[in-house]
Amino acid sequence: MAHNMHPEETERRILDSARRLFAEKGYEKTSIQDILNDLGLSKGGLYHHFKSKEAILDQLNADEWAVTARLLDELIGRKDMSALEKLRALIISAVDAPDHLDLVRSQLALLKDPAFFTANMRFWSTRLPESFRSLIDMGVQDGSIPTTYPEEAAQLLALLGNYWLMPCFYPADHADMEHRIRCLATMLDAIGVPVFDETLIPRVAEGLTALTHEGEAVSA
Amino acid sequence: MAHNMHPEETERRILDSARRLFAEKGYEKTSIQDILNDLGLSKGGLYHHFKSKEAILDQLNADEWAVTARLLDELIGRKDMSALEKLRALIISAVDAPDHLDLVRSQLALLKDPAFFTANMRFWSTRLPESFRSLIDMGVQDGSIPTTYPEEAAQLLALLGNYWLMPCFYPADHADMEHRIRCLATMLDAIGVPVFDETLIPRVAEGLTALTHEGEAVSA
Repeated sequence: MAHNMHPEETERRILDSARRLFAEKGYEKTSIQDILNDLGLSKGGLYHHFKSKEAILDQLNADEWAVTARLLDELIGRKDMSALEKLRALIISAVDAPDHLDLVRSQLALLKDPAFFTANMRFWSTRLPESFRSLIDMGVQDGSIPTTYPEEAAQLLALLGNYWLMPCFYPADHADMEHRIRCLATMLDAIGVPVFDETLIPRVAEGLTALTHEGEAVSA
Repeated sequence: MAHNMHPEETERRILDSARRLFAEKGYEKTSIQDILNDLGLSKGGLYHHFKSKEAILDQLNADEWAVTARLLDELIGRKDMSALEKLRALIISAVDAPDHLDLVRSQLALLKDPAFFTANMRFWSTRLPESFRSLIDMGVQDGSIPTTYPEEAAQLLALLGNYWLMPCFYPADHADMEHRIRCLATMLDAIGVPVFDETLIPRVAEGLTALTHEGEAVSA
């Protein structure tokens, strides 16, 4: 292999190839050698960046999260919004993000794979609720999220927002989706987390329907 | 192998061995040969019962479901209970079942495996909600479950009851568990599904805490 002048470029190419192969063949059935063949890369060239196939999978998951984490940090620092408004902004960004729509779509295709799906579910039940929790605690403080269930709300926002609302897991047309989000809104209102209002409901329904608009259902 | 006089006994032995090996080594890493070695069985003796490793996994899942399905059929036929009371009886049976506690515990250990976990999540998002849906529709008819979200309630009962409430996925001591169920009760009341009342809440909290009492957390 030619001397690598652009290590970041190589890393990106490895991740793109792995994402595509994992989605096509499944994570278990894809070998490091398949990725090397796809890229015409040497073993050393890959291991310089990733010490295992699992490390590639972890990075693919981390990439998806990084977009949200950056926005969350930015939002937490703002003084001109209530915590509830920040939580709304975070949700809108997740469904209304043309800049990382391709990334989200390729992640959705990967969710067909049991290893990837399981890793995502673990992330949604552990790390993601912690992030929601910090915003909800701020909302309890500033009075915009008057809940006695901050932990439960954080867990449910992460689980239901990433799994139950997704038409690839629970098929839905636009009308079903709006009905589903209205159901979630009613339930969250009841526990003091009035995050889905009449502005947000149609916008999230629109965004989620568009997200899987062209894709087929994930049979995970 | 000696002529098999007890095919059902052989099938049960295969399932018991597979359940244990899948839980210990993981589904992917367990081979048909491992199961044969464990039982001292011939290839033909196993393939007579199951045509693939996947067929064994499917049967393990079906076994867990069969217990609930039998009770559901029985409940649906009864004339002396409202649909809401039937739904409560179904929930109590799921958490308060010493007769199949060992089966439930061994299934919980299996949930560490990505293939098994993914198959269960698929079941909880597709077939299980259909069963809850039939009871909820009866409740809309007899007035005991006055909801405009029958499909959403069926999906959420299946997902949250089997996943979010489980301390192996979302760690909880007894007090956390009661708080979590109270949260779910408040949300379901708000969408017209008042299934968790003051009798059911402590009973379900008790049952779920006992279920994973001796077991360690599943790191799925």
